[in-house]
Amino acid sequence: MVSTRPRSNGGDLRIFFEPESVAIVGASRTPGKIGNYILRNILKLGYKGQIYPINPGASEIEGLRSYPSVAAVPAGVEMAVIAVPAHLVLDVMRDCQRKAVKGVVVISSGFSESGKEGMERQRELVQLAAEAGIRVIGPNTTGILNPEGRFTTSFVDLKGVKPGGIGFVAQTGMFAGMMFQYIFSSQYFGLSKVIGLGNKADVTDHDALDYLSQDEATRVVIMYLEGVKDGRRFLGSAGRLVRRKPLVVIKGGKTEEGARAVQSHTGSLAGRDEIFEALFRQVGAIRVTDFEELIDLGKTFAYQPLPRGKRIAIVTLSGGAGVMAADTCLECGLVLARFEPHTLARVKVKMPSWASPSNPLDIEPLSEVVKQEGAYRLGLDAVLSDPGVDLALVVMTTFKMDRVHADYVLEVARAYPEKPVAVCIIGDDAIYSQLFRIMEEASVPVFRSVRRAVASLAVLYKYRRFLDSLA
Amino acid sequence: MVSTRPRSNGGDLRIFFEPESVAIVGASRTPGKIGNYILRNILKLGYKGQIYPINPGASEIEGLRSYPSVAAVPAGVEMAVIAVPAHLVLDVMRDCQRKAVKGVVVISSGFSESGKEGMERQRELVQLAAEAGIRVIGPNTTGILNPEGRFTTSFVDLKGVKPGGIGFVAQTGMFAGMMFQYIFSSQYFGLSKVIGLGNKADVTDHDALDYLSQDEATRVVIMYLEGVKDGRRFLGSAGRLVRRKPLVVIKGGKTEEGARAVQSHTGSLAGRDEIFEALFRQVGAIRVTDFEELIDLGKTFAYQPLPRGKRIAIVTLSGGAGVMAADTCLECGLVLARFEPHTLARVKVKMPSWASPSNPLDIEPLSEVVKQEGAYRLGLDAVLSDPGVDLALVVMTTFKMDRVHADYVLEVARAYPEKPVAVCIIGDDAIYSQLFRIMEEASVPVFRSVRRAVASLAVLYKYRRFLDSLA
Repeated sequence: MVSTRPRSNGGDLRIFFEPESVAIVGASRTPGKIGNYILRNILKLGYKGQIYPINPGASEIEGLRSYPSVAAVPAGVEMAVIAVPAHLVLDVMRDCQRKAVKGVVVISSGFSESGKEGMERQRELVQLAAEAGIRVIGPNTTGILNPEGRFTTSFVDLKGVKPGGIGFVAQTGMFAGMMFQYIFSSQYFGLSKVIGLGNKADVTDHDALDYLSQDEATRVVIMYLEGVKDGRRFLGSAGRLVRRKPLVVIKGGKTEEGARAVQSHTGSLAGRDEIFEALFRQVGAIRVTDFEELIDLGKTFAYQPLPRGKRIAIVTLSGGAGVMAADTCLECGLVLARFEPHTLARVKVKMPSWASPSNPLDIEPLSEVVKQEGAYRLGLDAVLSDPGVDLALVVMTTFKMDRVHADYVLEVARAYPEKPVAVCIIGDDAIYSQLFRIMEEASVPVFRSVRRAVASLAVLYKYRRFLDSLA
Repeated sequence: MVSTRPRSNGGDLRIFFEPESVAIVGASRTPGKIGNYILRNILKLGYKGQIYPINPGASEIEGLRSYPSVAAVPAGVEMAVIAVPAHLVLDVMRDCQRKAVKGVVVISSGFSESGKEGMERQRELVQLAAEAGIRVIGPNTTGILNPEGRFTTSFVDLKGVKPGGIGFVAQTGMFAGMMFQYIFSSQYFGLSKVIGLGNKADVTDHDALDYLSQDEATRVVIMYLEGVKDGRRFLGSAGRLVRRKPLVVIKGGKTEEGARAVQSHTGSLAGRDEIFEALFRQVGAIRVTDFEELIDLGKTFAYQPLPRGKRIAIVTLSGGAGVMAADTCLECGLVLARFEPHTLARVKVKMPSWASPSNPLDIEPLSEVVKQEGAYRLGLDAVLSDPGVDLALVVMTTFKMDRVHADYVLEVARAYPEKPVAVCIIGDDAIYSQLFRIMEEASVPVFRSVRRAVASLAVLYKYRRFLDSLA
C-alpha cells in the first residue's frame, strides 16, 4: 500500500497530489454524474494508490469495492474527495475527522459563493477542518491534477493528459478544468501540477505557490487570480517563487466592473488594482490579461532557455512579416541585433548579386540559390552563430513547405542551446498543424502570429533582466 | 467570348478582376514552376474567359493551345500576367503594347526592390505602360484573386477558395498569398477581392481603395501597408471608403527599425509614424498591429451588424472568464449593461434561491435548473431582449457541450438581428472546432480568447461612433 513513486520535497500540499490512498465520497455508478466522472478519471490516469469509492447505496462501483462511509473503510485513508450535495458535506467532514484523513478536496458548491447559508456552512467546514488538522482545497472547485503522479480529483473529461513543466493555479475549478482540457487537446507541452483553489476556505494562493516553488517538475507557474486572502504572505511566497522560476499571472477584477464581477463570482475582494500592479512588479511576476497570452508565455518559458541579452535576429521568408516583427520587437523592449561582417558575408555569398542582407534577414533571395529549406538552415545558423545575437525569431510560410524545413530549423536551434528561438508560421492550416507538432515536440514554440511570437520571446528577456537585478 | 457575369460598377481595376481574356506569359508545363502554378490556379478556379498560355517552346500547356507571344494570339487579349525573368519583361510589355492589352500583372521580381538596375528597369516599365495606357499591378507580387469571379493571377496553392465580404489589400504578394491560404484553410468566412500591390509601379493604394469602395461584394477592407505613394490621394480614397465600409489597417514600419526593414523590403518609405497615426484617426480607419487582429476584426465586421451603443451583456458558464471579459470590455471602451428588473426576474425564477443574477450573467446556476443548453438559450434571450443592451458576448465552455448548445445560441442571436453577438469557447479542441464551424457558418464570430472576442465587438462600436460623428 506504500507508494514507491518519488516525492516532491516538501510543502503541506503533497498529500493532495500524491496521496497513498483516496476516498471518493459521492462516487457514483451513473455515467454523467460528477461522482462517476471523478472515479473514472482517477482510474483512467492509472493512479497507483488505494481507491475507496464511498456510496451508501452501492457495494461496487467501476469494479471497485465501495463503502457506505469513510469510517467504514477497513484501512487508513490519507485523502478524501467530497462530491455530495452541500448540506451533506459537514457530516462527511466529521467522518473524515474520525478516520484521521489528512486532506480533503471539496468539489461541492453551495458555500461562501452562494449567500448567507453557504457562508455559514463554509465557516463550519473550516472549523471542523482546523480541529482535526485536515487541510482543505475548495469548496466549489475541480481540485487538482497531477499528470506525472497519475492522480486527479477533477470531473472534467480527461484526454491526452501529459506531464510537463508548467504548473497552473486557478482561482476557479471550471476555468482550470476548461484550460487543461484545451491544453491537452491542442498543445504539445504538458503540465506538472494543476490546482483549482475554488473558495479558498483553507488552502490558498500562497500555499499553492510555496508548493510549486519546491516542486521540481514545475519550471514555470501560470496563474489565474481573482483576489488574494493574505497580501503579505502572497507577496512573500510569490517573491520566493520568482527567484526560482517565472510566475505569469492574470489578475481578474482589474477594472471597477471586473471587481464587481469577481465579488459575485467567488466572493473574493478583488482589491485595488494599482496595489496588485505594484505588487506584481515588485516581486517580478509577469502580468498578462488573457489566457491565450498565459499559455503563450507559459510554453515559451517551459521550452526555451533565458537569453543573455535583448539583441534579436529575425529570419524570414516574408518581407512583410519581417517588417511587422521588427516593429513588434521594438515595442516589446527588444532591439534588432547588428550582424557582424562575417555573418553578412556568409549569407551574401549565397544570394543573387542585387540582394543586400540585413536584420530582419529576408531569406527569399537566399532561397533562389540554396532552396527554401537550405535558406532557413543557412540563415538561422548564420545569425545564431553571431556573438551579437542573443535570441532569434524565424518567420516561415507554408509555401512549398514540408517537414524538412522544420527538421533543418530544429537542427540549427539545437546547435545553439543557450539562445532562445521561436517560430511563426503563416499559411495553410494543415501544413501549419504538422509543423507545429514537429517543432513543439522538440520544444521550439510555434505561433500563428508574429506579435505573439515576439511578445513571448521578449518576456524571456524581461525575466532574465529581473533575475539579473537581484544579483 | 463575352462574359455574362455581373460587373462591379466602376473603378479602373475591373479588368484585373474580371478580364474577358487573359494571356499567361511564362506559362509552363513543369509542375512546381510559377508559370505552371498560375495557369493551374486559373483553371482550378473555373475561370470562364479565354485563356492564352504564352510560351515560345510549347504548343499546348495544361490542355490549352499555347502561343509563342502575346502578339501571336489570334484574338483580343484584355489582360496579361507576366511571369518571366525580369530581363525579359520589357520585351513582353512591348508585345502587350502592340496587342492593345489593357492591364498587366507583373509577377516577376528584380525591379525597384533589387538595386539600381532593377530601379531603372521599373522606370522603363512604367514608361512603356504609360505610353500605351496599360495599367500595371506589381511588379514583384502574386497579384490578384477574385473568388466570386473565379479568377486569379496568384501562384500560391489554392484550396477551399470561398467568396465572401472581406476585401484584402496587401503591400506584398507573398504575405497576401500566405494570408489567403491561411484564411481559406482555416476560416469559414470568404474573401471578395484580394490585391497584392507589390512594388506599386502604377496601381497603388488609393486605386485599390477606390475600387473596393465601389465593389458591392466587399463589406469591409483589411489592409497591410508599408508605405503610401501619394499621401493626399490615399487620404481622400480612404476617407471616401470609410464612409461606406470599415477599413482595418496594419501599417508596417511603425518603429524606426521597422521603417528600415520596410525600405530594404519593398523600397517604400515608411514615413513618420505619427503622421500615419493622425491620418488613420482622421479618416476613421482602424489601426491594428498584427494579422491575427486583422482577421478577427475583418470577420466580425463581415458577420455582424453595428451596435446602436456600447452597453454590452456578458453571458457565461465560467465565472472566471466572465470576470476577464468584464475587465476587457471596460478597457476596450464598452460598458456593462445594467439589466432591467424584468430581465433579472426572468432568469432569477429559474435559478436556485441563493443565486443573484447580474452582468456578467453567470448561467451556471441556471444550468442546474434548465440544463446547460437551456441556460445558454434563456440567458442570452433575456439579455438580448433587454432594451438596455446593445450587444452581447457569450462565453461557452466545452464541458458537456454538443451542437445543440450552438443551435440554441444561434436561434436566439437570429431573433435579434440588430444586436451584434460574439462567442468565446474555452476547452476541448475537437469540440471547439465543431462549434466554431457551426457558428461561423451562421455568421456568428467565434474566438478562443475572451480578449480577442471583446476587442472585436468593441471595434464594431468604435466604427459606429465614427459614422455617427459624421452625421
